[in-house]
Order: sequence, then C-alpha cells, then structure tokens
Amino acid sequence: MDQIVDIISELGRGSEEILVESEFAEKLKKGRPLRIKAGFDPTAPDLHLGHTVLINKMRQFQEAGHHILFLIGDFTGMIGDPTGKSATRPPLTAAQVQQNAQTYQEQIFKILDPDKTEIVFNSSWMNQLGTAGLIQLAAKYTVARMLERDDFSKRYKSGQSIAIHEFLYPLVQGYDSVALKSDVELGGTDQKFNLLVGRELQRQYGQEQQIVMTMPLLEGLDGINKMSKSLGNYIGITDAPNDMFGKIMSISDELMWRYFELLSFRPLTELRRFRQDVEQGANPRDLKFLLAEEIIARFHSPSAATAAREDFIARFQKGTMPDEMPEISLNAESGGMAIATLLKAAGLVGSTSDALRMIQQGGVKIDGAKVEDRSLMIQKGISAVFQVGKRKFARVTLL
Amino acid sequence: MDQIVDIISELGRGSEEILVESEFAEKLKKGRPLRIKAGFDPTAPDLHLGHTVLINKMRQFQEAGHHILFLIGDFTGMIGDPTGKSATRPPLTAAQVQQNAQTYQEQIFKILDPDKTEIVFNSSWMNQLGTAGLIQLAAKYTVARMLERDDFSKRYKSGQSIAIHEFLYPLVQGYDSVALKSDVELGGTDQKFNLLVGRELQRQYGQEQQIVMTMPLLEGLDGINKMSKSLGNYIGITDAPNDMFGKIMSISDELMWRYFELLSFRPLTELRRFRQDVEQGANPRDLKFLLAEEIIARFHSPSAATAAREDFIARFQKGTMPDEMPEISLNAESGGMAIATLLKAAGLVGSTSDALRMIQQGGVKIDGAKVEDRSLMIQKGISAVFQVGKRKFARVTLL
Repeated sequence: MDQIVDIISELGRGSEEILVESEFAEKLKKGRPLRIKAGFDPTAPDLHLGHTVLINKMRQFQEAGHHILFLIGDFTGMIGDPTGKSATRPPLTAAQVQQNAQTYQEQIFKILDPDKTEIVFNSSWMNQLGTAGLIQLAAKYTVARMLERDDFSKRYKSGQSIAIHEFLYPLVQGYDSVALKSDVELGGTDQKFNLLVGRELQRQYGQEQQIVMTMPLLEGLDGINKMSKSLGNYIGITDAPNDMFGKIMSISDELMWRYFELLSFRPLTELRRFRQDVEQGANPRDLKFLLAEEIIARFHSPSAATAAREDFIARFQKGTMPDEMPEISLNAESGGMAIATLLKAAGLVGSTSDALRMIQQGGVKIDGAKVEDRSLMIQKGISAVFQVGKRKFARVTLL
Repeated sequence: MDQIVDIISELGRGSEEILVESEFAEKLKKGRPLRIKAGFDPTAPDLHLGHTVLINKMRQFQEAGHHILFLIGDFTGMIGDPTGKSATRPPLTAAQVQQNAQTYQEQIFKILDPDKTEIVFNSSWMNQLGTAGLIQLAAKYTVARMLERDDFSKRYKSGQSIAIHEFLYPLVQGYDSVALKSDVELGGTDQKFNLLVGRELQRQYGQEQQIVMTMPLLEGLDGINKMSKSLGNYIGITDAPNDMFGKIMSISDELMWRYFELLSFRPLTELRRFRQDVEQGANPRDLKFLLAEEIIARFHSPSAATAAREDFIARFQKGTMPDEMPEISLNAESGGMAIATLLKAAGLVGSTSDALRMIQQGGVKIDGAKVEDRSLMIQKGISAVFQVGKRKFARVTLL
C-alpha cells in the first residue's frame, strides 16, 4: 500500500490535481499497463517547452511500463471553425493533418519512445459515429451541467453568445476516452472540465472511469504569463542550441525550480539536493547550466549541449557578465516597444540613434543572441537580459 | 395586389399566424408552385380529426396548385428516446417506419391527392449529414436563443434537466426545410419555435426563407380540451360511420362552427350563409347533419354518409329525440366514471342495478350507439347524449 502511495507521488510529480486518487491506487494495484491518453490539437504542431510538460508526463508513465495513447484531435480540426467567424481556424484537409502528424512525431519522439507510443486520430471513430450516434451521445449530458463550465457560465451570464456546437466538443473529447478505453487522461488545468466529461461518459457507457491528472500551464520566460508564442516568452523545441541556452540562463532563480520540476527528467531526490546546495551558497547559475544542457541534449544532442555551454561561456567571458545587474520594468504599449526606445529607456544607451548605431555594429544582444533587426519590436510580457557592448547589462521586463 | 390579399385570406383560413405575410405575398406573386412542407411523427399513424386540420390545409394548398411535401420524421423516430428513460419511445426499426408510412398513406390519401403528394423521409438526408455535418449545423444556432423556447426556458429556470440532444432536434427539423427548400411550413401552434428555426437556417444556408403558417390545435368533443386519444374526446378517422355521426351530432353549437372552419371543405362564403340561416331561426342540428355527412363521405363514402344519417334518424325517431334535453355536468375521478354510476348520477335510472339490467337488454345508448360493455368506463372530458330506453335523454359532461 505504501508502495502505491510512493508510485502515485512520483507519477503525480508537478501535477495540479489527480481525480480520483483512491481510484488511481486501485488501478495501479492491478499491476497491468494502464492506457494513458493525452489529446493534442492538430493545428499547432510547432511545440514549445510549455507543450512538453504534458509529453514529459507521458514519458514518465511510459518509463513506468504504461501504454501511451498520443491522440491527435483531427476530427474537430477538419471541421475548422463552423461559425465561419475565425479566419485563423480554416478546416484542415486530411493531407494537412497527415503532415502535421508527421511533424508532431518528429518532435515528440525526442521525448517519447516511438516503439511504445500509439498515435491515434479521433476522426477514425468520430466519423463512424454518424448523425444518430452523435445525437445519442448528446443525450448523455445536460445543458445545465455544460453551463457549469467556467467559460460557458461567464459567457452566458454576460450575454456573449455560445453556439450549440460548442456544447458538443467536450462530448466529442469525452467520447474519445470511451473509444480508447483510457485509464488515465492527462491535460492542462484548463482542460479539467472536459477531462471530467470523459469520466462521466465512460461511466454511462459502462466502462471503468478514467483518472484525470491535470498539469499546470508552464510559465514563460517572464515567470508571469503562461508560455506562449503570441507573448514571445517561449522556448521552441526547434530553437537553435545557443538560443535555448541563452533563454534558459535568462530566467529568474525561482522560475528555474519550476522548470526543473516540470521540464527536467532528474529524479525529485536530486532536485531536493540541488535546493540544499543553493541554500548552502552554491550559485544558481551553475544549476541553470545543468538545466540548459539537459534540455539541449534532449532536443538536439549532448554534443550540441556542450558546444552551447562553451559558446555561452566564451560570449560572457569570465567576469564580463555580472552576477548582479540592474532589474528594470518598463510599461509598453499593446504593440510592444521598439528595441531602440527600450535600450534608451533602460539607460543602456544615451539616445535612440546611439542604439541604432550599436545594433548596426552588432553590439546589441538579447539573452546573448545578437540583434540584427533595427526595427525589432519587443513584445509585452518579455523579461530578458539586454546587453550593449561588452559591459552594459540590464534585465528588462516589459509590462 | 388585392387578388393576392384574397388568396392569402383564403389559404390562411383557420390559421393562427402567418410569418411573414408580406414575404408570403412576394412568393405568391411569382406564380410558381410553392413547396409546402409539413412534418409528421412516424410513431402515431392512427389519425383523428385533430390531426387532419393540418392535412386539410395541405389539401387546400394542393388544390391551389402548390407542391405538397408530406415529411415523415423517421430519423429521430429511429433514434427513439436516447436517454433510455421513456419506455414509450423505443427506437423504431426501418421496417416499422415503412409500415407506419403505409398506414399514413392509406389515411392521408382520403384527403390528399396521391398523384400530387410527395412523401419524404428525413432519414435520407439526416443520415448522410454525418457527425461533422451535424456539428456544423449546431454551430448555426446559439444556446441562448434555444433557451428562449418556452418549454426549455421553464425547465431550465425550474432546475428540470434538459439533455443536450434536445437542443439538436429543433435544428434537425429546421434542416429538413433546408434539405427540402420549402417555401411554406405548416405546423401546430406548439411548433412555432421549431418552424422559425427552419426559417433561420434557410437564411444561413443562403436560401429564400420559408413562410411559417401555424394552425390551432383542434378542440375535442368536449369543446374544451384539445382533441386527444388519451382524453377520449376524439373522432378517429377510421371510426365507424355511425360512431362518427353520433359523435358529431353530440357537439355543442359553438364547437360546430369551429369544426366547419377547420374540418369542412365548404368555402367560407357558404359558412357565412349558414350562420345567417341560424341567426334567422334555422336549427343548428340540420347543419351538424351536413357536417357529419361531409366527414363520413370523406373517410368512408357518400353512400356510407347517407346510410349513417338514415340510421341516426331511425334510431332517434322523429319526435323521440327531444330538441331540448337536460344538460348535466358530473365530477369524475381521474380514471373516469363507470357507466352504471353515471346513469344513476344523471337521474336516468333509479339504481346502478337498474342501469346494468338496461345495458344487458340493449336499452342504453351513448350518442345513439348501443352500449355493450356493462363495466364501460366513461373518460373525463367526454360530453355526450346518454339515452336509457326510448324516452330518457340527458347530455352529460364529465369534468
């Protein structure tokens, strides 16, 4: 029994919630490989580290001998935005879905073992369900319960319209769990309601109910907002090794611990030792080196990780990068702030024309990466180390 | 233009609402045959006169040269009650649907011209729509608007559950109008919301919108409740001629005018003349004769109508059926009242054993039809002429 508690504690590392833990223990006690489901949107296969939190969790289950179901939600993707209002959600063709799936595989197999990962597409059972089947599915859930979902409730109360098909999507997602007979579904905290619909539908279809494990949304480089492409505070898993290194070195010490928990494969025991080391005076910067190297090794190679570390050290030659540097917060317009304006506001240059000249000479870096574009706009939410010449540094956060 | 107004006035005879009348005029002005849709439930093909109000209206359009679409809603019928809660709505098989359709045809072709009536089944386009198609359909309507439907609104506010598929049924019905490109949809007043969904969906699918014409629900023999099998206040279209005759003779004078408007094919001008006749002293009973004969001729034959009239006159020989008779109202239990108890309460017999003896001797009649069953239960809501022996009559209404 205590052993099961330990297993749950390890498998639950970094998770926000496990529903229901006692049932999870029951499933684990049976000793059979559990079916672990996680669903991914087929439209955005260009992953950043935020997306990998879930994939890392799948890897953890995989290493513990469980069966991984990597679900590509192509059925809804091929519908697109049926209201026709969003130009950004055109329906995908089957060929696009296949191509995106290919791209996904190239990326996730840097984390998951391809031989132990089953990739599934929900179009295969959803198209088969048919009109009548979808109506029967819709009969299994009530309007009132659907309106309890946070975002629906807010929109309904504030008079914002909810189209009826939006009530069908959680049911489609839940039905995926029925079709897959999943034992555990992993998802972001924002998916909790939908994951619970899966539990409920499995009950109604006479199946053992899945465990729901929610993972937090990873904070971006600024340590405040969730990591996202549109905020610019992300590390893409196809970023060049030097960029990854610089970005990881730029994060705050506090965020480093968070990243260790959610992005590193080092055991919890080791992370506890790191904390003790820092409490006893070790420099967190050295731990960021370890974290950066682990992540670059995963997405590129161990030798690329070593090279990136050496390059970083060469760029910030011993003593040139100060341990302490000014921390500056600036208020930006919604469109962000032009690089020259930012450098002047942060006191790193005397004037915007100085700034532009320094950029042209290659003397301006953000997190160690040279700025090429003189009209670069820095997005709100970004927190990074800006460097002018060899000795002027500041950590600037754009609010 | 005045001609169109006259046509609308004639086609709209007895209708509750026409939405939108100006658009109706536009459609009529084009001079092409309009596509007239009315939907019927595939589970209850045993029609009574209440059902024929709609079919009579279809006939009127048919006679005016328009194209009639008799829609059998077999798609939802074959789903049954997906919640599994109602034992009375098991799913129909395709064979049952075919058989019910056959029964429908036998009945409706007593009113409609088979050569000018197209019978259509919505399963033919609904099954083809598929899961994705249904989701796209559901995207065309909002939760808030669906919750405006009277019954949904009441149930939601009072905490009674609404299953999500119930939101899909009005959309399915509305999509039928799109699939059929209907110009006019006919339905009961209780169907108004659903018929308007059809209008809205046609707009969204880029079609000319259908006109919605709602027909009132016909009152039953009691003149109060709507005609229904479960209330027992109905005239089935397969009832025997003598039963039909007796039942029609039993209705109140006021109800007679209502039945003339909604059940007779006599032109409005003729009905206006009848009213004048009665105002000038004619006996309404003679008009009931005409109404009864018209209806029996329709569902049986002109000769059957004549025979039923003669039989009725013979049974109530000249002078034996009083023009005036006692009108008695009795309160019944929900299960109704036993015939013997009723006869005693109405003062037609001295005791219930007298009543039972008279029944055995064939001396008790209801609306001229002999009572055979000594334990007959008379349903609440019934209003009829009860006769014991040759000379005792009373009109009894069971409340």
